[in-house]
This record gives sequence, C-alpha cells and structure tokens, in this order.
Amino acid sequence: MPAILTPPTQPSREANLTAQFLSVRKLTEEICAPLQTEDYVVQPTGDVSPPKWHLGHTTWFFETLILKTYRECYAEYNPNFNFVFNSYYESLGTRVVRTQRGNLSRPTVDEIFRYRKHVDNAMVALLQQPLADDLHYLITLGCHHEQQHQELLWTDIKFILGHNPLLPAYDENIHIEITAPPSPPSSVAMMEGVYEIGYEGDAFCYDNELGRHKVYLPSYAIATSLITNEEYLAFIADGGYRNFVHWHAEGWDWVKTQGIEAPLYWYRQHDQWFHYTLRGFVPVDLQQPVTHVSYYEAAAFAVWSGKRLPTEFEWEAAAPNFAWGHRWEWTESAYLPYPGFVRAPGAVGEYNGKFMVNQKVLRGASAFTSPEHGRITYRNFFHPHLRWQLTGIRLAH
Amino acid sequence: MPAILTPPTQPSREANLTAQFLSVRKLTEEICAPLQTEDYVVQPTGDVSPPKWHLGHTTWFFETLILKTYRECYAEYNPNFNFVFNSYYESLGTRVVRTQRGNLSRPTVDEIFRYRKHVDNAMVALLQQPLADDLHYLITLGCHHEQQHQELLWTDIKFILGHNPLLPAYDENIHIEITAPPSPPSSVAMMEGVYEIGYEGDAFCYDNELGRHKVYLPSYAIATSLITNEEYLAFIADGGYRNFVHWHAEGWDWVKTQGIEAPLYWYRQHDQWFHYTLRGFVPVDLQQPVTHVSYYEAAAFAVWSGKRLPTEFEWEAAAPNFAWGHRWEWTESAYLPYPGFVRAPGAVGEYNGKFMVNQKVLRGASAFTSPEHGRITYRNFFHPHLRWQLTGIRLAH
Amino acid sequence: MPAILTPPTQPSREANLTAQFLSVRKLTEEICAPLQTEDYVVQPTGDVSPPKWHLGHTTWFFETLILKTYRECYAEYNPNFNFVFNSYYESLGTRVVRTQRGNLSRPTVDEIFRYRKHVDNAMVALLQQPLADDLHYLITLGCHHEQQHQELLWTDIKFILGHNPLLPAYDENIHIEITAPPSPPSSVAMMEGVYEIGYEGDAFCYDNELGRHKVYLPSYAIATSLITNEEYLAFIADGGYRNFVHWHAEGWDWVKTQGIEAPLYWYRQHDQWFHYTLRGFVPVDLQQPVTHVSYYEAAAFAVWSGKRLPTEFEWEAAAPNFAWGHRWEWTESAYLPYPGFVRAPGAVGEYNGKFMVNQKVLRGASAFTSPEHGRITYRNFFHPHLRWQLTGIRLAH
Amino acid sequence: MPAILTPPTQPSREANLTAQFLSVRKLTEEICAPLQTEDYVVQPTGDVSPPKWHLGHTTWFFETLILKTYRECYAEYNPNFNFVFNSYYESLGTRVVRTQRGNLSRPTVDEIFRYRKHVDNAMVALLQQPLADDLHYLITLGCHHEQQHQELLWTDIKFILGHNPLLPAYDENIHIEITAPPSPPSSVAMMEGVYEIGYEGDAFCYDNELGRHKVYLPSYAIATSLITNEEYLAFIADGGYRNFVHWHAEGWDWVKTQGIEAPLYWYRQHDQWFHYTLRGFVPVDLQQPVTHVSYYEAAAFAVWSGKRLPTEFEWEAAAPNFAWGHRWEWTESAYLPYPGFVRAPGAVGEYNGKFMVNQKVLRGASAFTSPEHGRITYRNFFHPHLRWQLTGIRLAH
Repeated sequence: MPAILTPPTQPSREANLTAQFLSVRKLTEEICAPLQTEDYVVQPTGDVSPPKWHLGHTTWFFETLILKTYRECYAEYNPNFNFVFNSYYESLGTRVVRTQRGNLSRPTVDEIFRYRKHVDNAMVALLQQPLADDLHYLITLGCHHEQQHQELLWTDIKFILGHNPLLPAYDENIHIEITAPPSPPSSVAMMEGVYEIGYEGDAFCYDNELGRHKVYLPSYAIATSLITNEEYLAFIADGGYRNFVHWHAEGWDWVKTQGIEAPLYWYRQHDQWFHYTLRGFVPVDLQQPVTHVSYYEAAAFAVWSGKRLPTEFEWEAAAPNFAWGHRWEWTESAYLPYPGFVRAPGAVGEYNGKFMVNQKVLRGASAFTSPEHGRITYRNFFHPHLRWQLTGIRLAH
Repeated sequence: MPAILTPPTQPSREANLTAQFLSVRKLTEEICAPLQTEDYVVQPTGDVSPPKWHLGHTTWFFETLILKTYRECYAEYNPNFNFVFNSYYESLGTRVVRTQRGNLSRPTVDEIFRYRKHVDNAMVALLQQPLADDLHYLITLGCHHEQQHQELLWTDIKFILGHNPLLPAYDENIHIEITAPPSPPSSVAMMEGVYEIGYEGDAFCYDNELGRHKVYLPSYAIATSLITNEEYLAFIADGGYRNFVHWHAEGWDWVKTQGIEAPLYWYRQHDQWFHYTLRGFVPVDLQQPVTHVSYYEAAAFAVWSGKRLPTEFEWEAAAPNFAWGHRWEWTESAYLPYPGFVRAPGAVGEYNGKFMVNQKVLRGASAFTSPEHGRITYRNFFHPHLRWQLTGIRLAH
Repeated sequence: MPAILTPPTQPSREANLTAQFLSVRKLTEEICAPLQTEDYVVQPTGDVSPPKWHLGHTTWFFETLILKTYRECYAEYNPNFNFVFNSYYESLGTRVVRTQRGNLSRPTVDEIFRYRKHVDNAMVALLQQPLADDLHYLITLGCHHEQQHQELLWTDIKFILGHNPLLPAYDENIHIEITAPPSPPSSVAMMEGVYEIGYEGDAFCYDNELGRHKVYLPSYAIATSLITNEEYLAFIADGGYRNFVHWHAEGWDWVKTQGIEAPLYWYRQHDQWFHYTLRGFVPVDLQQPVTHVSYYEAAAFAVWSGKRLPTEFEWEAAAPNFAWGHRWEWTESAYLPYPGFVRAPGAVGEYNGKFMVNQKVLRGASAFTSPEHGRITYRNFFHPHLRWQLTGIRLAH
Repeated sequence: MPAILTPPTQPSREANLTAQFLSVRKLTEEICAPLQTEDYVVQPTGDVSPPKWHLGHTTWFFETLILKTYRECYAEYNPNFNFVFNSYYESLGTRVVRTQRGNLSRPTVDEIFRYRKHVDNAMVALLQQPLADDLHYLITLGCHHEQQHQELLWTDIKFILGHNPLLPAYDENIHIEITAPPSPPSSVAMMEGVYEIGYEGDAFCYDNELGRHKVYLPSYAIATSLITNEEYLAFIADGGYRNFVHWHAEGWDWVKTQGIEAPLYWYRQHDQWFHYTLRGFVPVDLQQPVTHVSYYEAAAFAVWSGKRLPTEFEWEAAAPNFAWGHRWEWTESAYLPYPGFVRAPGAVGEYNGKFMVNQKVLRGASAFTSPEHGRITYRNFFHPHLRWQLTGIRLAH
C-alpha cells in the first residue's frame, strides 16, 4: 500500500495555484451578477471600459500569454477576439482603441461567458501538470491582472450606473463602500534617516515594486487617519474651489473648464449634500473618508490645510501604522522607475514601464480592492485629473 | 334584427387609424426581432441612435404629444423617460444630448418593450372613441413619425453591425437591399415652363411639402435610371477621389481629412470590391444602384460625368417617369422653406422648420422606406457629408 | 500735321483699363495708409487675413494668372511667394493654410510694397499694347478681385483693431460707416409672375451671375428700408437671444455655445449700448441700420418680427426700389448655381463654383464696397454664422 | 578734503545692482536688434511668445512688482498694459491668454521701447537710494526673470524664423549654437551614499532650489559628454522612430499622431540631413551635441542605447565633472517640490510652485542661457513633448 506512504500533507504548488485561479475567476463573475445585459455594454467615458470588455480581456490575457504559448493542443476560441480584447499590448497586434469599446455589441455577453468557460477548462487542464517557474509566474500574474480588473469593474460599474439619469442602484443592500468607523485624527512622527523601499520577499509583486533600495527621508509627521467628508466639506464651505491660491495651474484650469465644485458623484440638494453610491443616491456620511477626488483636489485641500501630501517613500516607511484598505491615497510622487528597474522582454514588459510619465502614484488599497491583492509596497498610478476610483487623502507635514 | 340594418360597410375612420397604428407599431418590433440585446444599446457615431432609443422615442412621442394631453385618465409610465427619450424638442424640456444615447444601459430593452405595451394599450383605448380632427392628425403624424424611425432603424442597425469588427450578418437570407433588375440607362426630356410643386390632396403629408406653388423650369433632361455600382467604379478607377477639380472645396477637405476612397461599407480585397450588407460581407453587385455616397461624392461624380444633379423641382416635375423606391437621391437643392411655409405653434412646429439651413434635399424613397411612407412630394434632408442612409445618384443635364 | 487728323477723341480700351488698374491699386494702398507696421501682420481669427497678405495676394493674382502667362519677358519677383500668397487655388500649387497666415513675419511689409511696385510696372508695360479679349477680361477680373479684397481689407482691419484690448481707432474722423439718414419704414408690393434673374449686359460680372433665367415668384411685399439698431434693440430687449422658438436648431446651438447676446462689436455699459467702429468706441446710433449680424440672427429677428427674409430672387426683382450700398443683406437663399452655370477651365474656374454648398447668399453692397464694384445682380456668400462683414437685415412678407 | 577719507573702494551693493540691471536690460534689446518689426509680432504656436511681448512683459514685471509698490511718485505708463503683459499671475488681475498674444498689433514695437525707457528711468532713480533687503531681492529676481526671458527670446525667435517658409537667417555669421569641440565619450563612476542636494550660499537662486537636503543614491555611472548628432543619427537609422518598444505609451502616441521622424528643425534632402539654425539652413554637424529633442525622444534614445536618463539628483551630484552650458539636459525626474518647499506669499509665490505637476526637470544650461544665469542647482522644467528649447541628452547607467 505504497499510496499510504506518501500522503500529500501539503497541497502541491499547482493545486494552490488552481484554487487561486478558480477563486479569482469566480469572483469576477460574482461582481457582475447583479447587472442587466445592457449594463455590460456601455462606455460612458474613455477611461471606463464596458464590463463585458473586462470579462473578455482578462480571459484573453490567459489565452494569449499562456495557453497559445504553453499548451500545444490548445484550440483558440476565436482569432478575431485578439483584435477586440487586446488592451494596449503593441507586441500582440492591432486592437480596438480604448474609446471605441462601447461601440461593440458583439461578441454578446453570453458568448463571452462561453469564452471564459472555454479558457477556464483549458487552464485547469494545464494546471494538472507540474509547472516550470516561468509559467507559474505568468499564471500568477494573470490572476493578479484579473484582480486589478476586478477593482476597475467595481469603479466602472459604479460610473455606468451613477451616470445613468435613472440612477439605478447596483444593490440596495451592499455595504462595500462603508468602511469601519474612523479613528480620531492622529499622526505619527517619523525620524530622519535612511529607509528601505520596495518589495522584498518570495510572494508575487509587480515589476514596478522591485529593486528594493535606500531612500533618505528628513523627519516628518504623517496622519494615521484619512480626511473625512466632514473635513472636506469645510474646504468646500471655505470657497476652496473658487480660490486659485490653493491650486496647481493645471488644476485651476481643470476646475474652471470642467466646472468642478465637489467630488465626483456629489450633488447638493436643498442645502444638503448627497452622493451616488452602489446602494443608490444617499446623503453624504460625514464620518466616512472622502473619496472620488482628483490629485488636483487632494493637493489643493492639502495647501488649504497648511499641510501637504506625503511622498510615496514617506507613505511606505510609515505604512505599518495605518489601518488598511479604505481608499486609495494620492501621493506627491510622480510615477517613475525605481533604481535598477528593468522591463521584462516581450509583451509582459509592457505592463508597467511604458506608463512612467505624467502620472501620480497612489498607495494603499480601497474598499474595491480584491482580497490578497494589496501590499504595502503596491504602487498604483493615475493621471492627476482622474477621480472615478475610490481615491482619498492622507496628509503629512 | 336591427343589426342587419346598419352593417358597417365601411370601417370607421377610427378603425382605419387603429389598424394603421397597430401595423406600424408591429413593424417596428419586427425590424428589431433578429437583434441580440446588446445590439439595442450601442451608438458607434453621433448620427446613429441605439435601436432601444428608437423604440422608446417613438413611444414617448405618442405618450407626450397625445396621451398626456388628450387622455385625462392616462397614467404616465415613468416621468424620467421624458429626459431619456426626448430627441430635440426644446418645448418639451431637457433631454439627453444625441451623442450620449449610447451610454444609457437603463432602461433595459425589456423595460422599453413594457413601456411600448403600456402606451399601445392606452392608445387603442383612446382610438375606441370618435376623434376630433386635430387629434386624428396628431395620431397620423405619430404613425408617420414612427415610419421615419423605421427607416433610421434599418440604417442604424446596419451601421452598428457593419462597424463591428466581427461583421455579423443581420439575417443571411434577407434581400431587402437588392432592388429590381435595372432598366437600361435612359432619360426623359422635360419642356421649359411653369410647373406646380408641393403636396396637393387630402392624405397625410409633412408641413414642409405644403404650399403648392409655381416654379419656372428651363428645359432639361433627367435620367430615368440610377447610377449603378459599375458606373461608380469607373469614377473610382479614373482617380475621381484623387482629383480636386471634381469636388466642392468642402468636399475636397472631407475627402482629404477623412481619407475617403470609396462609398461607405466598401473594401477592396485582392483587387475585388466587397461591401457590407445586412446579409453580411459580399462582393459588390455591378448592376445594382450605387448607395451610401455623400452629397459631396454625388456632386463630384456628376461633375466627372459632365452632367449635374437635378434640383428638387426638376426631380418632382419628372418623377412620374421614375421607378420607385430604390434609393434616396441627392438633389442640388438646399433644404429651404416653400413660399408660404408656416411653422405650427408648439412642439409640433419644431418638426421641420428649424432644420432649414445647411442641409441638402433628398427625394425618392429607399429600400428601407416603410410601405405607404413615400410620396413624390416627400422631402428628406441631410447634411452633405452624411452617407449612412441608402443614398444614391440620379443625373440631369 | 498728321497728328491733328487722328485725335484720340476717345481713350482706347487699353487706356481705360490702365486707368482702372492704377486706380484700384492705389485705393488698396490708401486703405492701408493709417496702419502701423504691426497692424499688417496679425490674424486674430481664421476668417480674417492680415492686411499684408491681402496686399501680396492681390499682386500675386496679377503675377500668376497674367504676367507669367502673357508676358514672356516677365521676371518673377520671388518664386517662394507662390506658396505664401496663393489663397485656395489648388491648380496653382501648395499654399499656406488660411489659419496660418498670421504666423508669417516675412516677407516684410516693405518687401511686399516693393513686390507691388515690381508687378505694377510690368502690368503697365503690358497694358501699353493692344490686348486680346481674353487677356482684357483677365485683367478686368484682377481689378474686381482686388476690389473684393478691398472690402475684406476694411472688415479685417476693423476686426484686428476692434479685437485689440486697447481698442485703437483706425481714424477718429472717418465717417465711412455712417450712412445717409434713413427713410421712414415702407415696403413695396410685387406682383406674382415670371421675372428674369441674372446679369445681362456687356460690362464685367462674375460667372455666378451669368445664365439669365426666368423665375416664377408669388406675390410678395418687401421693405424698402433696412432694419435699424433701434428695431434690433427691441428684439434684444424682448429676450430674443434667450428664446429658442425664433432660431434654427444650428443657430440656437451657436448662440448657446458662443454665448452670443448682441451683434459683433456691441457692449453694454451702464445700461447703454456701445460698439466699436473705425472711429473708435462710440454709442450705438439708433437711427443707423443694424450691422454685424449673422444669418442666424437675421433669420431669428425675422421670425420674431412675424416676417421673413426675402429670397435672392425676390430681392433682385425688387431691387430697383432700394437705396443703394448701406449693408450687405442676408437672404433666405442658399448659394447654388444658376441653371446653365458652367465652371471656366483652369484656375479661374475655381473662383466661385466650388464654394456652392452650405453658404447663404447676400445681396446689395456695403459702406465698405469699393466704387463701381456692386451691381443689382451681384451675389456675395458667407457661412451662416459669420458676421465680421457689414451684414444687415431687410424683411419680406 | 574729506572726500579722500571715504573713497568707495568697493562699489555699493546698490551700484552693483544698477550695473547688473542695466546690463540685463541692454542685452535683451541687443538680442532683438537684428529683427524686422514684423518679427516682433507673430506667435506661430501657443508655447512661443512674440518678441514684443517678452520686451513688454519683463518691463511690466519691474513696474508691477516693484515700482508701483516701492516708488510712491511712480506714474504708471499705461494701466491697460497690465492686461496685455501679465503672463500668468492670477493675483495681479486678468490677462490676455497665452495663445492670443500673437493677435495683438498694438501696442506697437516703438511704443514698447518707450515703455522700457520709462520704466528703466524710474528703476535707475529707485536704485540711487539704499535698498532694503526685500526690495534688493525683488530687483535681483526681476533681473533673473528677464534672463529667463532672454533664453526664451532666443528660442522663440528661432522658432518664428525657422517656421517661416522663406527660412530667413537671424544672422548669417552668428555662431552661438556651435559649442566647443566635444570631448571623447567618457563617464564618471559615482559611489553609493548620501549626497546633499539643493542650493547653499548667499547669492541668488530660485525658491525651487532651496531646502538643501540629503538624498541617498545607489552607485551609478554618468556620461561626461552629451549625445552627438552622429550618435542620434544611428538611432534614426536603426528605425528608432518606428519601433514602439523604445517609447513610453504617451511618447508613442505623440510620434504617431504628430508624424515625428527626427528632431525639430531637421529635414532630409537627397539623403543628407539639414537643419535650420540662426545662421540659416545648414547641414547637420555630426560632432555637435544633438538638440531640439523632446523628453519622449531622449527617453526612447536611452532605452535604445541600453542605458537610461539620470535623475536630477544623480545629475547634480556628478555635475562638477561636466563641461558647462551646451544644452539643457532632460532628466528622468518629475518636477516636484524639495522637502520643505514653501511658496512665498503673494504674486511672487506663483513663480514656481504651481507648475509642479506633469513636467520634467531639465538640468544644465544651454548656448542660449545668459551669462551668470546658470547654476549647478538650477532646475528648469518643461512638459515632456516640448522641444523648441535647446534640449539635449546625457546618459547614465
């Protein structure tokens, strides 16, 4: 009875990855479950993608970077899908431009779910066998890639429903946007000196976190809590959106030409502030952290407060003191390569490096971030005017 | 047996109108029957509207202009629909701008079909009773309005499917775009003199056809057949799209900046011309009339031919000699009011008059025109660069 | 004494043309005399050209279409000037796009005056000899062409100075914009019937006036006076710019997106209306005809008045009853070819025909029209939103 | 003879500043001396300002920030000039938008020289008396501000003449753009450790250089020479502009949409590269440093080279090893505040801080930098697509 002699007391690395893969793929579909077919299709603005595009693109990623290369017997589902679901990978052929994704009625949502099933089956078959390290890494990357799109799915669904004139709720009982009761405002003092920044360890991280390196920081203080709606309302009430002295020149142009007067989704009715959430249209809760602000608004608020935004290095050094996962937080840092950053060859190398100009780093994680997806060293990045993410504010001085 | 004494040998005016109403409403839904839910939603360009918007807007027209005014007991289906489905009636409140219609996932297609049923029931109830003349006219107008949108439905569906990278067929067996075999080229000579132009009679016509009036025409000849694909290909082969002498200055700018080289939906592959039709992607049939050309192209073709486009007056005077219903035909005439044109008061007055600048008149009817909807006096109008309609060419000299 | 036997009791055709040529050329330079060098250079908007461009372009026209063809010994002044001073003649090579003319500091104004002198000398030499009919026509065309640019010079100079924040006067004593005291409002009744339209005679006219032809007009009445500033102010005071019912859909878009509230150059200060004129910034004179209105404004005013704009045919038939030369007058007619219109071959053929789409006909002549340049049959044309010309309003009903 | 007892062996601080002031003011006018009046007026693109605007704006700076505040008897030259010559100071009232500066024919160039004289006289009078420290600083700042505009004058004049189709030379004998013969390629190795960054000393510097602070740098090597035209041509010849792998995503979009194929001012004729310089149109000198490249091009060249651009901190630490003043050099660093950066109150505070987003830092100085204007700690900054400055490339690895 030799089988008794070698019980797999530990699940194999492959079995773990299979479980992770299936869990991620399932969550994506659960996020979409409350949607109507029509909600999967539209793209109200160029930065938002239709949910059906996310469903297809994350699947295309596994098919194109993994199955077509590593599984010889794989039958491609539909060669035209490369054109439809490629996002920005120039290495992998032409693609629908981002602003045109909302014009595609076909493939239908049903067809895309069939596509997912087809790819999932092939992936599970691939995962039955021992994986070389590079393939293991690529599948792990594919899971993390899909988790990034889960975050975007939440924000894009919120944008699609929140910009429909009927303001339909995603789910009247969902509480995902409500975070724990806030701690009283406080800050932590950090000592001058050299700190180590960047990822260190054996688990997954993105290439932009690698290259752990030393950074010299002067002494500083950084808040352990996020700015609340109540604090932000004081900025609005004080005319913050009407006084140029708080703003960057580009931010002031943005405020004037776009007619900005409050965070995204906020409306004033009869002297009270309301906002659209996934639960529908509700009054603004003063105790919750402010969200849906652009970098320009975060920076202007900081100037008005007499403080400033932290750099991403200050943030990372102090992060063990922070509660986790409420909002993405704008930093003062531009999105640049760490010392020693090297792009991977091929399509994977397009993941991060080519976006390292004109964007700002965000740190933390938000209520929409999938479980196991955030890290203290995680670097997100957006253009400074964007605010459809759950972006918030932490101050330093 | 008194019933025998009063047989309705003639259906009443109301019964006729009820039959017309139900027939029109049914045809609209039949046109949409082959669509997938996703096809109802998208708007690939600003001039195209999503099919679900057409379904809702034609219904809103009956609800807003008729039921809410003439049927006291009418319960409005959803007050927010006024914002969603108003097209351009400034009198009737604010509205979604035309280029934003493709961003609306809600109301869903199912909801819009329920809305149609709700309004149809109320309309049929209204039609049970004798109608005053003005109400009878408004309902007739609503039917004709919906027939105009049926034509747009066909062309918008063709655009949505024909601009999808998968080029799906609407119905592989549909022959709607194939017209009767063409007659050999010939023309009719018209004598100089005064002609009567404009609608005369008791049936329905639009306000822009009224004001029958005298026009003095010099002698002219006008073709009794339309330009075929074969004739148009000779223009392409002769470099017609690359020689500015044929073109209006604005047309030449359009050709250069848009990179125009052939009619819409045409593609050259391996030295053969193909085009997208509702049956799918097929070779161009040389004997069929050319279609999907702009006014600029029609006018350039005419200059290249050594002939010219007819005026709408020349067209109408000679129209009894033409076969009917193949293509909409560009004329040289600008869309202007007839002598004595008067806008009706209220929202109905916005139907035609406010568009009478910078557009060209089209005459005839196309393969997409609904039965009973065309007339010799009918005046359609589009901006000169548009070509998503079944627009063709007839020459005069 | 043979000289006595052949006294030139009549100046020769060539001598007359020489006199006309020199007179026209001189007037162009006189119009520019009060300018500073800097005023010759700028182009505040795409429809305006810098005065130095007008000086060069009118000269280039004589050089390119006449001297280089008809005078073998002619030495071209500078071959690069073809690129700089060609306006829109595709036949004659590439050219600076219209919106870039204000970026050209070279050639300098002095250089352009030397260019004018060089061409004038060659032209006078050419005019010493008997001219064939086609050459005589071309030179005459060149003179009329320069007169058209004189009109544009006035309006472009007014725009350049009138859009400078210092609002400098062109000449504080000039009275060119003040017309004769207006006659009391009155109108003339015209009988129904066939009228002859278009130029007839031996003197110069443009190709777009040719093809005298019959037009059938219903009976109508047309004002013998122009709308005054006082009448137009009543439209403003009645909220004319804020009520969509008066406007074309495109006109209403123009009013809203451009924030239009009054004619061009008008400003309200302390409840009084002022406007910029060539004399500087002065109060609006209530008795003068309104000017600097777009077709959209003219048409909206007409709707508000319960009347309408005349067609160009109604205008021409009634024109012998009008006082002359106060304003260009918008008509309801689109700019289209007369029956039998034929483009001349070559570059001259680009003069008119290729602009016959999306423009409106203006009739009459303005205070800026050069002597001998206007005719009852003259057809000017502009896009409906333009108003930097001295455009006014005459009503019909 | 008491005068003997107190000889001013040292010129006073005021006398020194007067000399500096007059020297700077004189150089500005000398740079403009070869221009024609017309060259002072035009603005071929929004980032370029007309020379006459620079002449006026630098004068307005002294008038507005110094004379109107610190000299009670000062008579303002013309109150309207505030509107015309304010650049971006929101504190100081409304202003002509930057892209409209080329539409201003008035004030004339002569008038602006009179304005300069008026202000110079008042400044010299002010400088006769002992100055408080803050006033001394402001006048020094005004001189440095004018030196920045001298640099812009050179580049804007080059752009104006270099984009004129006649390609006129500024001065056929000027050698300003030719730098010393290059040293052979070499690099310097820098050791890992903490470096001090930022200005330290008593002389003038801008606020964005203050806050000397420690930065931890890993070991790196940095070139002591700039990339030459010959090296850059190898990048072009290798298809560098046609291969997306070298480029940032935004850079690749810029290359494709703008049709970029070489540095600004470069043209290939008959297989040889020429470029426009202030001496006119000449062959590219292979030994000179490349210039007029954008950050996108510099970064793509670095990727193609297998190296990278230095950060501004790496640059400053190694700068004592570099030859001085050939080109402005793009760094990898985004333009951000140094630790402890504080904006000055009032208009002076708008000098730098409000531009600290979406721009890249340049270090060094160029052939157009005025004497005494550069420093090792100087931080210039431009948007990454701009290249009308003398921008060059230095690599690190």
